[in-house]
Amino acid sequence: MSRGHAVVIGDDFSLGSKENIERYISSEFDDVVKADLSTTVGVERLFNFCVNKYGRIDEIWHLAANSDIPAGVTNPKVDLERTFHTTFSLLGACNNFGVGVFNFASSSAVYGDWGDVPLTESLGPLTPISNYGAMKLASEAQICAAFESFLTDATIFRFPNVVGTPATHGVIFDFIRKLQKSPDRLDVLGNGTQQKSYLHVDDLVDAMIYVSNRSGEDSNTRPTIINIGNNDCGVSVKTIADLVRKRCAPDAKINFGSSSHGWVGDVPRFSYDTSLLSSLGWRPSLSSVLSVEKAIDQISDEFTKHLD
Amino acid sequence: MSRGHAVVIGDDFSLGSKENIERYISSEFDDVVKADLSTTVGVERLFNFCVNKYGRIDEIWHLAANSDIPAGVTNPKVDLERTFHTTFSLLGACNNFGVGVFNFASSSAVYGDWGDVPLTESLGPLTPISNYGAMKLASEAQICAAFESFLTDATIFRFPNVVGTPATHGVIFDFIRKLQKSPDRLDVLGNGTQQKSYLHVDDLVDAMIYVSNRSGEDSNTRPTIINIGNNDCGVSVKTIADLVRKRCAPDAKINFGSSSHGWVGDVPRFSYDTSLLSSLGWRPSLSSVLSVEKAIDQISDEFTKHLD
Repeated sequence: MSRGHAVVIGDDFSLGSKENIERYISSEFDDVVKADLSTTVGVERLFNFCVNKYGRIDEIWHLAANSDIPAGVTNPKVDLERTFHTTFSLLGACNNFGVGVFNFASSSAVYGDWGDVPLTESLGPLTPISNYGAMKLASEAQICAAFESFLTDATIFRFPNVVGTPATHGVIFDFIRKLQKSPDRLDVLGNGTQQKSYLHVDDLVDAMIYVSNRSGEDSNTRPTIINIGNNDCGVSVKTIADLVRKRCAPDAKINFGSSSHGWVGDVPRFSYDTSLLSSLGWRPSLSSVLSVEKAIDQISDEFTKHLD
Repeated sequence: MSRGHAVVIGDDFSLGSKENIERYISSEFDDVVKADLSTTVGVERLFNFCVNKYGRIDEIWHLAANSDIPAGVTNPKVDLERTFHTTFSLLGACNNFGVGVFNFASSSAVYGDWGDVPLTESLGPLTPISNYGAMKLASEAQICAAFESFLTDATIFRFPNVVGTPATHGVIFDFIRKLQKSPDRLDVLGNGTQQKSYLHVDDLVDAMIYVSNRSGEDSNTRPTIINIGNNDCGVSVKTIADLVRKRCAPDAKINFGSSSHGWVGDVPRFSYDTSLLSSLGWRPSLSSVLSVEKAIDQISDEFTKHLD
């Protein structure tokens, strides 16, 4: 919107809500269309709306996915349809409607569990350990094939762990919800040693716009694939639990599990390499710890608001 | 079969034929079941047949796919369903039926177009340029997630260009068919400089069995992913055209196109690194040129037989 574009948002509202989106909508040139983007019919409904109102579609920013990783571990069809079929259907419609620019929210989950090996964009083989990560990688693959065939510009952003509001899930959200239910105790999945870097959603959006503004500067033979994230050593689950307790329920007792994994599909520890992004000149405004602290404040406020 | 296993073959016969398979079937413990493996219903039909007859399923060898790459470029749904949904449905049934061992025919097409960069298993990012390669990579990804969740042993064989009989498509097949129709001329897609290594199907099977016999020797944290192929510098399309002409129609005139690509999704030139396979002690019995020559003889014989 800040670039002066008309923005049309398509969502099936299975995880998000119209209320979450509408607070960001500012003009008559922004629209929200309810559509199931995992099907050709749903995507064509959205595309037809855009073409009828604006005459053409310039760019796709594909962020639709099942973002609830454990749900996809329980039922792989959730990730198949919401995370991969959305990509497949959108690309098919781009081909039919002559849309050449495609931006995609991929994930660090495409790498899998590499321990302390730095996750650079040139690392292989890619061995995701969750159906979510698998369907993000499947999406990347289909975008690469489409780039060879008809896309003129494609950017694949590999997201880190992102925090902020509006939140629907995730470790901070879970901890705050648990403490709201029982303010005297906080049960933590896993032993709390899982350490990850976190990026605040405001920094994430800033980085995507930054990279997107540069695109077209190089003539690429393949899509731009880039890790987005903080390059610090991250925050442990134990620290997050301590910070949430401090903010929400200072007297709570924290109980840790014994596993180094939180749940099947969770990568316990990884070293996310963002030197490619740094080399383009972008810097995050908040470190991992500060991103988490800001998100705790924001999510607590949201919970309080809903209680009022 | 040579290991003393009962073998049940599931096929939808969309590209293969029952006749092709039956010549290899030797005992009352080998069965052929017609089933559409891209659907849960089709896979469960196959699995139920196996369990009813033999009591259990020990291993899956998943070779089902759309092997006609240009068909998938024209209609991405062909690769989605036949190349990826087959994998997705098979893995779902493995989880339900308690099958822990999964072997998969992946492809060098998962790498994309890297020119002279050696294609090692650790190369990234993976940027396939055909829907076929994309859906092979999607399959690899889903297998990795299944390995984290319930598989005990998974091997991903990245196939090279394979030649031999029975053939249904491919450059040798096409050249022979063209010369049968018009023995005076052979029109070649592309300028003939495309150079690839080729492996004969007999060597391919030998390598898969060899790697499979070793599996379980290392305790793996991820599926075994291994390139299968010849490590020579390959054969050009021009050489293949010359060899086919010599065998089938010595007086034909060969006409080349002007593009360095044969068709969209074709990787014109690549350097396939098979040092991991070599390090395990396996060697191909035939070089690329000898593999191609043997396949030309075999495929020509098949054409002649059909004419009789």
